[in-house]
Amino acid sequence: MPKANKKILVIHGPNLNLLGRREVSVYGKVNLEAINKQLKKLAAELGVALEIRQSNHEGQIVDLIGASFKKYSAILINPAAYTHTSVAIRDAVAAVSIPTVEVHLSNIYSREEFRHTSLISGVARGQICGFGIESYLLGLRAAVALIKQ
Amino acid sequence: MPKANKKILVIHGPNLNLLGRREVSVYGKVNLEAINKQLKKLAAELGVALEIRQSNHEGQIVDLIGASFKKYSAILINPAAYTHTSVAIRDAVAAVSIPTVEVHLSNIYSREEFRHTSLISGVARGQICGFGIESYLLGLRAAVALIKQ
Amino acid sequence: MPKANKKILVIHGPNLNLLGRREVSVYGKVNLEAINKQLKKLAAELGVALEIRQSNHEGQIVDLIGASFKKYSAILINPAAYTHTSVAIRDAVAAVSIPTVEVHLSNIYSREEFRHTSLISGVARGQICGFGIESYLLGLRAAVALIKQ
Amino acid sequence: MPKANKKILVIHGPNLNLLGRREVSVYGKVNLEAINKQLKKLAAELGVALEIRQSNHEGQIVDLIGASFKKYSAILINPAAYTHTSVAIRDAVAAVSIPTVEVHLSNIYSREEFRHTSLISGVARGQICGFGIESYLLGLRAAVALIKQ
Amino acid sequence: MPKANKKILVIHGPNLNLLGRREVSVYGKVNLEAINKQLKKLAAELGVALEIRQSNHEGQIVDLIGASFKKYSAILINPAAYTHTSVAIRDAVAAVSIPTVEVHLSNIYSREEFRHTSLISGVARGQICGFGIESYLLGLRAAVALIKQ
Amino acid sequence: MPKANKKILVIHGPNLNLLGRREVSVYGKVNLEAINKQLKKLAAELGVALEIRQSNHEGQIVDLIGASFKKYSAILINPAAYTHTSVAIRDAVAAVSIPTVEVHLSNIYSREEFRHTSLISGVARGQICGFGIESYLLGLRAAVALIKQ
Amino acid sequence: MPKANKKILVIHGPNLNLLGRREVSVYGKVNLEAINKQLKKLAAELGVALEIRQSNHEGQIVDLIGASFKKYSAILINPAAYTHTSVAIRDAVAAVSIPTVEVHLSNIYSREEFRHTSLISGVARGQICGFGIESYLLGLRAAVALIKQ
Amino acid sequence: MPKANKKILVIHGPNLNLLGRREVSVYGKVNLEAINKQLKKLAAELGVALEIRQSNHEGQIVDLIGASFKKYSAILINPAAYTHTSVAIRDAVAAVSIPTVEVHLSNIYSREEFRHTSLISGVARGQICGFGIESYLLGLRAAVALIKQ
Amino acid sequence: MPKANKKILVIHGPNLNLLGRREVSVYGKVNLEAINKQLKKLAAELGVALEIRQSNHEGQIVDLIGASFKKYSAILINPAAYTHTSVAIRDAVAAVSIPTVEVHLSNIYSREEFRHTSLISGVARGQICGFGIESYLLGLRAAVALIKQ
Amino acid sequence: MPKANKKILVIHGPNLNLLGRREVSVYGKVNLEAINKQLKKLAAELGVALEIRQSNHEGQIVDLIGASFKKYSAILINPAAYTHTSVAIRDAVAAVSIPTVEVHLSNIYSREEFRHTSLISGVARGQICGFGIESYLLGLRAAVALIKQ
Amino acid sequence: MPKANKKILVIHGPNLNLLGRREVSVYGKVNLEAINKQLKKLAAELGVALEIRQSNHEGQIVDLIGASFKKYSAILINPAAYTHTSVAIRDAVAAVSIPTVEVHLSNIYSREEFRHTSLISGVARGQICGFGIESYLLGLRAAVALIKQ
Amino acid sequence: MPKANKKILVIHGPNLNLLGRREVSVYGKVNLEAINKQLKKLAAELGVALEIRQSNHEGQIVDLIGASFKKYSAILINPAAYTHTSVAIRDAVAAVSIPTVEVHLSNIYSREEFRHTSLISGVARGQICGFGIESYLLGLRAAVALIKQ
Repeated sequence: MPKANKKILVIHGPNLNLLGRREVSVYGKVNLEAINKQLKKLAAELGVALEIRQSNHEGQIVDLIGASFKKYSAILINPAAYTHTSVAIRDAVAAVSIPTVEVHLSNIYSREEFRHTSLISGVARGQICGFGIESYLLGLRAAVALIKQ
Repeated sequence: MPKANKKILVIHGPNLNLLGRREVSVYGKVNLEAINKQLKKLAAELGVALEIRQSNHEGQIVDLIGASFKKYSAILINPAAYTHTSVAIRDAVAAVSIPTVEVHLSNIYSREEFRHTSLISGVARGQICGFGIESYLLGLRAAVALIKQ
Repeated sequence: MPKANKKILVIHGPNLNLLGRREVSVYGKVNLEAINKQLKKLAAELGVALEIRQSNHEGQIVDLIGASFKKYSAILINPAAYTHTSVAIRDAVAAVSIPTVEVHLSNIYSREEFRHTSLISGVARGQICGFGIESYLLGLRAAVALIKQ
Repeated sequence: MPKANKKILVIHGPNLNLLGRREVSVYGKVNLEAINKQLKKLAAELGVALEIRQSNHEGQIVDLIGASFKKYSAILINPAAYTHTSVAIRDAVAAVSIPTVEVHLSNIYSREEFRHTSLISGVARGQICGFGIESYLLGLRAAVALIKQ
Repeated sequence: MPKANKKILVIHGPNLNLLGRREVSVYGKVNLEAINKQLKKLAAELGVALEIRQSNHEGQIVDLIGASFKKYSAILINPAAYTHTSVAIRDAVAAVSIPTVEVHLSNIYSREEFRHTSLISGVARGQICGFGIESYLLGLRAAVALIKQ
Repeated sequence: MPKANKKILVIHGPNLNLLGRREVSVYGKVNLEAINKQLKKLAAELGVALEIRQSNHEGQIVDLIGASFKKYSAILINPAAYTHTSVAIRDAVAAVSIPTVEVHLSNIYSREEFRHTSLISGVARGQICGFGIESYLLGLRAAVALIKQ
Repeated sequence: MPKANKKILVIHGPNLNLLGRREVSVYGKVNLEAINKQLKKLAAELGVALEIRQSNHEGQIVDLIGASFKKYSAILINPAAYTHTSVAIRDAVAAVSIPTVEVHLSNIYSREEFRHTSLISGVARGQICGFGIESYLLGLRAAVALIKQ
Repeated sequence: MPKANKKILVIHGPNLNLLGRREVSVYGKVNLEAINKQLKKLAAELGVALEIRQSNHEGQIVDLIGASFKKYSAILINPAAYTHTSVAIRDAVAAVSIPTVEVHLSNIYSREEFRHTSLISGVARGQICGFGIESYLLGLRAAVALIKQ
Repeated sequence: MPKANKKILVIHGPNLNLLGRREVSVYGKVNLEAINKQLKKLAAELGVALEIRQSNHEGQIVDLIGASFKKYSAILINPAAYTHTSVAIRDAVAAVSIPTVEVHLSNIYSREEFRHTSLISGVARGQICGFGIESYLLGLRAAVALIKQ
Repeated sequence: MPKANKKILVIHGPNLNLLGRREVSVYGKVNLEAINKQLKKLAAELGVALEIRQSNHEGQIVDLIGASFKKYSAILINPAAYTHTSVAIRDAVAAVSIPTVEVHLSNIYSREEFRHTSLISGVARGQICGFGIESYLLGLRAAVALIKQ
Repeated sequence: MPKANKKILVIHGPNLNLLGRREVSVYGKVNLEAINKQLKKLAAELGVALEIRQSNHEGQIVDLIGASFKKYSAILINPAAYTHTSVAIRDAVAAVSIPTVEVHLSNIYSREEFRHTSLISGVARGQICGFGIESYLLGLRAAVALIKQ
Repeated sequence: MPKANKKILVIHGPNLNLLGRREVSVYGKVNLEAINKQLKKLAAELGVALEIRQSNHEGQIVDLIGASFKKYSAILINPAAYTHTSVAIRDAVAAVSIPTVEVHLSNIYSREEFRHTSLISGVARGQICGFGIESYLLGLRAAVALIKQ
């Protein structure tokens, strides 16, 4: 199958729209537009298309994943705060059986105790965290590698 | 009061719209339309009307329950993933004081540890789980029995 | 196989012989004779036979379940206090591989902390709790549905 | 009501039949006959009758308590090992609503961790432990005092 | 800067629209309109403007807080059920860096165990709970005091 | 009853005598005299009298509260370190049945883990924390509101 | 040694001076004077002398126990709130090696979770709880029995 | 003392009568008769006599152990489900002071969490698990070795 | 396959070289040479060869197990202190898929709490503990039995 | 600054006045006078002055530390039982910012579980335990070393 | 600085030498040589040099990291089993202050509970897991990205 | 016995070879050579000889301790990271029965949670922590004092 046909759903979770303004000591000055721009550039290089969405609503993210069935070859998700609290997103990922890559800007394991647990990682194929914007780019590469398998 | 006047609100929680596609080993091949059809058939037999809703949004479910006050005689809910995480749905059920029956397709007590706890069961009248589509039908009978009391 | 041949073992666990006298605020005024009478009536309607036993002895309940092999098509059990403490009854249910329905008069999840855990539910097909005498009747319907599958 | 009519059920739990042989460093050399003799002597002084039973069977103790309803004015029980594991005995005590006094020969709070929790004490009127044979005699006095109230 | 220019965002969390009907033993008979009326009256006295919103949706509350940046001088929030479950609201509060006051009608520390933990309080400036409608009025005073600093 | 007759007992717990010298990064530079002065000024405005005491001794605080019966209409207490360790102060507050307001200078929920639990809040009417000296002033308003009810 | 020479130190812990006023639903209407009067009467019958003290101060109770060495044959203590929090009183009891009887008016095991643990019971000879004023009288008998051994 | 006089009590705990039918994936197809036959054969080789009992009743097992005093030189026990729940059997073993060997057919440490804890192993001389029927044969050798010491 | 060809790797974990000097009250006076001598004698009887190694180094034990692949028919290991702390040894045992028997001289379940957990037992075929030198001999028999299967 | 001007506050916590009589198996026969004599002798050698105090009262110890500000160069404290329970002493140490050395006669880490946690050590500069009287002498040297820095 | 000069230390932890033979269901058939070959190829593309080491010894890994100071620009480590148990490797990483990337072949969060905790991730810059050999390649890209910053 | 004959084994645990480079904010700038030099100087003053070793290998430290039997009068050990994870070192210390002093440069009780537990302290005679290089010097004095006893 030609790679050019592959489409990947990118989901930015809650508060990522505030990036750049938000806790600069933790997340740096990069904003969401910059991330998306770099993701698109790399996607072009790797020969895949992207559909990018941001939502602060757990239910919308569940809707998005539920609707992704047969439309996307992989999901790249930064579940942000919902990482630690959403069984619903976990169940959605498990339900659609699309290979899913979980990414985080910060190293969630060197932050508050309640950020050390991910409900998503048990159903994702893998997880990448701590490299800032690079987490997304590596995640995109991982997603493309999963598609190729 | 004639039973024919009774109306029961049926709420399907997150990801139940995916039923049939979702984790077939756990949930079988039944889909939501089949469940609703059987529910309506049994409701007709038991002489009650049903209002059936599905939502992936915790807030919408809270809205639905909050608006049910004085409009419904009972609630039949499968809170799905929100069973384990939603204090808001629990508070909504407690607030409206309508007899509520909690149902689950699968036996939540023989699955992952985090599914063993239900925030809803403490305020529901009772719980039925593990019988697949039959859980809903038994739940509807339970709701009708509660109305009769 | 004609349903009329089907036999279901009903087991009432410890202290259920005291029903009606026991903690009326929790269990209501119904007594065991009334429950058995209603169970038999519904069994006749559903075309199944019942063998009904009550015991306060964990070992006797284990004996009963062990001896049920090839004699019963399903087990309907209210393990009462042994719900929370008996690995032996759990092992017996697992050993005989007869579909088992667990019922409770009260909603065990809205009572003391130590009643929130059921050792039986992990091996039962499903659980019904909180509907008083109706829990048994729904449980019998569930058992019959399991036999039909 | 004349005290002479009062009857108290005394229950010795599991392994108390071995007393005198059993772990002498913990329980001393006293045996069950000696305890019963002193209990009867004190009962005579206090004008109450005693029915004394020992059992190693949780179910028999549940039976005994269940049958005590309207026959005894109080229960004096040393649940021994079942103190820490029996929800069934707890439920039996709660069911019959007869004032119950829990006694222990040894100080259960200065022994192994798992002996620090009593499932019985939450439904008993009070508890006496650590005074050897004297625990029983004080317990009998407590039971008589409860009857008088 | 003249106080009259200051604007405070007031957020009422899930189920607060049901106030007055909801669990009267816990929350009393006051309803949301009454609270808002008293808040506006006090705001006028203290020379600040209010923007008041109620939502049952976690995502909407996150949206509201995210959009508050540079528009409000303080946030007064009763996160209700989301107090105990929403990392997303916590992150939103932390992201916008607007001084935030957390209020509760009831004393959350004398209710169920799961209400004793607040995910919000770690990022709020302070918390006020237990005084019913007065919690809001004191919270507004606290917010105004924070603005003045 | 005219408000002017009302008297409120203000208790400053251990180490508050060191305020101003103590951990300036946490508590700021305000000292106890400044707090008391502002409290007295506000009390005059609100038409209540104050009795103000500071003690480092758990027993003295228990004595003070025990002796407050029928002499004070409300208690305003900053239990400081005893918040987290004193069942005795909790019992004293419960014993005298005088409406009690718990205040803290700092936000105890954003400090060390062991400061997240308050033994007092379960018996106080409400709690205010995190607003520095303003916590006391809001607490005094809360106490006056409780008296008026 | 003649019993008449024996002296027992009776210690009433924090808030027991408030008895009769304090939480009547838990402790009944009996007050400390009534308890002391009955204790003295029984002591006379049993041929022992009593020294009775009440204190709200952990340190004073430690002082009292420390000073009891060689002056008393036994200690009868109701540590009240300090039961659950005082390692210092535990250490004092262990240090003086005088047989000590721990008593409680209420059944501490049927109250709040934090009252289920006693730091004192590990070093006391035994514990009596739940019988109201009778707990003290039985405790005195237990102390006299310990002296006789 | 001649070995031929030695007698060992073998106790099979609950549900072992079902062996061969029970969870074949865990326990294999061996049944109790086969185990007993092999045990007897090995006993003859080792010059000891066996008394073999199976019971589903915790109380009967306690009775058996209590009655073993001075009649048996060792006990070989597979407590099965009671391994994890019976303080009474633990106390019985401790009481009779006969060297006791605990055996399990399956490796209890690679099964469910609640099977990882043995209440018996703390008072047994040693434990053997995971070798199927061989666990019993090794256990018999261990018992004989203990007798010889 | 003739048994004489079979070779078993015996691994003695950390500090077992000190046996005989080490905590005689726990381990007795036997030393490692005596154990090895008896193991070799029994191996000759059972027709298997032994390779015996002792190491205090977790890494060396991992090396040994990793190198055992296709060279040994079974492993007999006393992981000593590493029982409770080494995931690496667990992974090595799982990796080589050679049937492994875990033995301990002492009964690890009647010692300190931290010795009650074995990381190895989840991947070993079975465990034998508490019989001193006999644990090794029984373990060797178990290993031979596993090879024969 | 000449060392001779330095003054160190030595605080002996609860029950240390009983030393020599108290649990000789744990603390040996040394008494407080002997410790103080040796401390003074060493202080003279090291050129520092000592102020030595003993108290059984948590509040007095808090008072002492609070009053030490600008009067002492270091604090040497054996908080004894308050080590494990006093947040107030912890706060006092933190408040005065005087370098503090915590000492214990016994090794608190080889005693009861509840003695393994020190609330003081988090704010002390360091801790010395287990060396009997030598703990104090080493602690004094440590304090002098801290002053010199 | 020219990238060509950059050198990265790659550390493979315990049992990775067994890859390909080890638990194929978890790790697939890839072996260490294949991984190293692909790593070297990518390193050449990215213009960095690699030093690759495998060790089963915790101490050797600590030695390696300690010696890496000023010799390497980054560390790429798969700590394998030591991920969950080694504070020493954690301390080594923290000590040398070289940017470190943690990788895992499998998704450690969907395996046994004890593999969900990483002692290393708290001091690593980021973590990548679950992508098999791709985890290493992405990790190398992450390391190069960290060097460039 | 003349003190000059006494020899003490000094063991520096993992990563201490990096001292001076390692986390300067925690450990200061002192390096291992400086510590050893000061230790030797003090040893000369106190009339004892030292054997000083550093190792990053748990197994080597176990070897060292095992070999110390009858060669050294005391052990002075800074187990560093192995403090919190090594049962093997604990067992080695217990096995050789040589008085052992545990020292730490930093105050382990004011660092991360997992550093608050020492597996070594339960078998060491005492512990000294938090005084930097002075911890070692005081530890040497403690070791000499233990030898003298």
